[in-house]
Amino acid sequence: MDLRIIPLGGLGEVGKNMMLIETPTDALIIDAGLMFPENDMLGIDCIIPDFNAVLDRKERVRGIVVTHGHEDHTGAIGHVVEAFQAPIYATPLTRGLLEVKLSRAGLLDRTMLNTVRAGSKVQIGPFGVEFFHVCHSIPDGVGLGITTPAGLIVHSGDFKFDHTPVDGWPTDYAALAEFSKRGVLALMSDSTNADRPGWTPSEAVIDTAFDDLFRTAPGRILIGSFASLISRIQQAIRAAERHGRKVAMVGTSMQENAKMAQKLGYLEVPNGLLVSVEEALKLPSQKVVLMTAGTQGEPSSILGRLATGRNRQFDLKEGDTVVFSSHPIPGNEELVHRTINRLFQRGARVIYDPIAPVHVSGHANAEEMKLLIHLVQPKHFIPIHGELRQLHQHGAIARELGIPPENVAVVENGYPIEFSEGRLQVGERIPGEYIFVDGSGVGDIGPTVMRERERLARDGFVIVRAEVDPATRRLISRPELVSRGFVFVPESGELLAMAEEKIRETAARGDGSRLSERIEAALSELFYQETKRRPMVFVMLNGNGKKAEK
Amino acid sequence: MDLRIIPLGGLGEVGKNMMLIETPTDALIIDAGLMFPENDMLGIDCIIPDFNAVLDRKERVRGIVVTHGHEDHTGAIGHVVEAFQAPIYATPLTRGLLEVKLSRAGLLDRTMLNTVRAGSKVQIGPFGVEFFHVCHSIPDGVGLGITTPAGLIVHSGDFKFDHTPVDGWPTDYAALAEFSKRGVLALMSDSTNADRPGWTPSEAVIDTAFDDLFRTAPGRILIGSFASLISRIQQAIRAAERHGRKVAMVGTSMQENAKMAQKLGYLEVPNGLLVSVEEALKLPSQKVVLMTAGTQGEPSSILGRLATGRNRQFDLKEGDTVVFSSHPIPGNEELVHRTINRLFQRGARVIYDPIAPVHVSGHANAEEMKLLIHLVQPKHFIPIHGELRQLHQHGAIARELGIPPENVAVVENGYPIEFSEGRLQVGERIPGEYIFVDGSGVGDIGPTVMRERERLARDGFVIVRAEVDPATRRLISRPELVSRGFVFVPESGELLAMAEEKIRETAARGDGSRLSERIEAALSELFYQETKRRPMVFVMLNGNGKKAEK
Repeated sequence: MDLRIIPLGGLGEVGKNMMLIETPTDALIIDAGLMFPENDMLGIDCIIPDFNAVLDRKERVRGIVVTHGHEDHTGAIGHVVEAFQAPIYATPLTRGLLEVKLSRAGLLDRTMLNTVRAGSKVQIGPFGVEFFHVCHSIPDGVGLGITTPAGLIVHSGDFKFDHTPVDGWPTDYAALAEFSKRGVLALMSDSTNADRPGWTPSEAVIDTAFDDLFRTAPGRILIGSFASLISRIQQAIRAAERHGRKVAMVGTSMQENAKMAQKLGYLEVPNGLLVSVEEALKLPSQKVVLMTAGTQGEPSSILGRLATGRNRQFDLKEGDTVVFSSHPIPGNEELVHRTINRLFQRGARVIYDPIAPVHVSGHANAEEMKLLIHLVQPKHFIPIHGELRQLHQHGAIARELGIPPENVAVVENGYPIEFSEGRLQVGERIPGEYIFVDGSGVGDIGPTVMRERERLARDGFVIVRAEVDPATRRLISRPELVSRGFVFVPESGELLAMAEEKIRETAARGDGSRLSERIEAALSELFYQETKRRPMVFVMLNGNGKKAEK
Repeated sequence: MDLRIIPLGGLGEVGKNMMLIETPTDALIIDAGLMFPENDMLGIDCIIPDFNAVLDRKERVRGIVVTHGHEDHTGAIGHVVEAFQAPIYATPLTRGLLEVKLSRAGLLDRTMLNTVRAGSKVQIGPFGVEFFHVCHSIPDGVGLGITTPAGLIVHSGDFKFDHTPVDGWPTDYAALAEFSKRGVLALMSDSTNADRPGWTPSEAVIDTAFDDLFRTAPGRILIGSFASLISRIQQAIRAAERHGRKVAMVGTSMQENAKMAQKLGYLEVPNGLLVSVEEALKLPSQKVVLMTAGTQGEPSSILGRLATGRNRQFDLKEGDTVVFSSHPIPGNEELVHRTINRLFQRGARVIYDPIAPVHVSGHANAEEMKLLIHLVQPKHFIPIHGELRQLHQHGAIARELGIPPENVAVVENGYPIEFSEGRLQVGERIPGEYIFVDGSGVGDIGPTVMRERERLARDGFVIVRAEVDPATRRLISRPELVSRGFVFVPESGELLAMAEEKIRETAARGDGSRLSERIEAALSELFYQETKRRPMVFVMLNGNGKKAEK
């Protein structure tokens, strides 16, 4: 084996969160991000990739390269820094975002951060890493050209080919073409939109949509977006300037990111255009733009609070226009639509895609993927950053363009892709899953607890406590019942009385042995019969209750 | 008041599930459907509209008109039939589907079912109801022209204007134009796709997609769709005939619906084309089409079981192509995509929109909505069948076409729309919500139980049982702890030991009063400190446990 590439984590968006590239003696990490939990992962805050494989070879890790500043590529960096030390390489804006994150976690001191710029090259152990600029929905994103002992590997990062990006900085076509001249062993490319035909529209279409909107909005304009979407903030600022409005950033994340981006030169703000929220609220409505996060329907965000009338600093008023300049993250659709409905209900006009083109994807569509493959002309092709269905579709695209099927590796996380004498082979899956983070617990919640939560969420539980005569094993007190999530107790007197009666009956039968178990079984049956629900039932008898369970 | 229209239910898809139309002396019901629960409605099976308003005037209800056979228009019919009696009117296929449903619920005997045909007119009390054919994703759907003492009301049903529908039966333009000649007091129109521009593509585009697919599929073709989507079954059967394959219906709902549709003349099957699943499994792979339900990712459906290798009758094999001829119902996206990923993982090729146009919506897009308004030329416009955001958009469309803003009524469920001397007015909201159905309970689960389930789903619970000396109020046994959904107990020995110690400490302090409450508070604090989770904590002390709670 000359070179091995391992996307880390469980089934999910392959290689999106963390990748390991290694020779027999040295290793390099690309990204360290998190996933958001799916709707049925009850109570889980976030998910990080299992990097035990990295820990096994941590003395060989020469560096960590971060392609851009989004959470799904940076969100696990704290966990990584706590587990082992390696220099981190990132472009200025990405570094700025990492610093904010690491300093909040009290980990900044022990982190070796290095700034690199798109267009530069850094030698990291045996890996010569060239950073090339790519357009994405956050500025200063890069792809990587990695010269390894086995050959040149190109990693697209999260990318699209926007010919008219907000910052005027297109994807670096020359670098890509130059790689192809040198000969590329393998291209790893972003598959997020592989099932979408055509090209992703340019961010420039949003300027036109904003102009329409700013011209016609009768009152305040509230623009909701992601705090990391600096280019959207820039577009809002420019539109405000064109239409004679002032802009206020609402909420900490928006304010901090805008400030940092402005300081680092990624956000241009004309003098006097930015005002505080307090000032904005005093201006005439038609002079105001409020820029806010919370477009994913989070109930505690500004938009979430406005939707339910619980925002302290200000409320919606007649004539407000709320713009959702974002798409729902998969799984958030219901919450986002509910928020939009409630904003309408409270009298706002709400604009969202597809009503007006106020958002575009940050990822390449199928035709852009083809362009990348043609520019780079790789010998092998590895679709990354997508669910399995998108990887398969991206693989099909590569085969259509003439890459031989045996040179296309569609794999799930954990499968090592190995190169020996220029030939690709997929190895045995190495163990590794996604790790649930819940509260301060990392990885302590597994399938057992998740199954318990599912059952509790569906049908709740009932606890029964009763005193039993130790000698006769007969009930000597009235049983007490406590339930949660099962029935509405004030209206369930009859059912609870039936349960009490059933407990007495059961206790009166038999010789008193296995009484808790028998009561549990009898109650479970009764509850199912009467309600068609299956609450968890626990019976605790005086001094003979069940022991603390496994 | 001459006429009142009330869409029933809580905030949701307005008027979709049930509507009441009344004069001072008589009432008519349109549809009686259910909603599917959203992702955060834990444990809820389905939701039905609150029809107490109907019960209040049940002696005045002259009939129930059902526009088409989908669950969101028919699924609550059993609850309605149990609550009051009124003749039901439906077209043959809709009636067939109602009969299946009512007979399963043992309610067929006490139901007065009347068959009507598109194009016919029935007098129901003072309401002259004309049924006109509309295209939708189920055959035999109708819209309604209702002649009332106050004027002519047109109700679109769920509709689209497909010029090349599978059954060759386009929406009845002549009826619509004829209504406009008579003068239409109000149009109520389906708003589902109001935020989608242009026209919904014809079902005919699917024929082309199926042809491509049938020509290139190397092995079996599994087509997943809704069992009620008879026209899709028809398209699969025709494609199979063109390409020399046999078709088998997999699963009861598919088999029953196909049989019923064939019997009633809504499905044409060439002789010998339909085979049993057993026969199909013996044929060469490239001669087989398997038609199945389960495209919403339901784990217990055929596709769900195939995705996880748990289908008994047959398994996926090399060369299988699985087609998702459907879109995810909102809220089901994650589950559907997970199923698709797993099918890929198990070696199938999976085709879904947008990879190929194998599904189209059953509802009109914005331009079709405009056509309907122009055909009908109503004086008043009431957008129905959509979330508030779509109703607002549909309202905007109507205003664009010149209907005066004061003649457009965008309302939520529960708001009565009243006509007096030809003028529209929106009345005070009448009480009414959506009713949760959970197991056999209808309406017994409210906000309290839902909040409990949410909390349990997030952090689980801990029960503590201990014996206390009745005199001294000191612990006299080792406390027992039971937890579910909180931590993985085998690996949480340390935390549980800390909890035990905390219980002892708390019991040793103070005078023994309010001991349960103090232990609960101390443990809640400890658990939050250690895990940043907030499980429900219940402390049950011997003979002094808390009483069964409210």
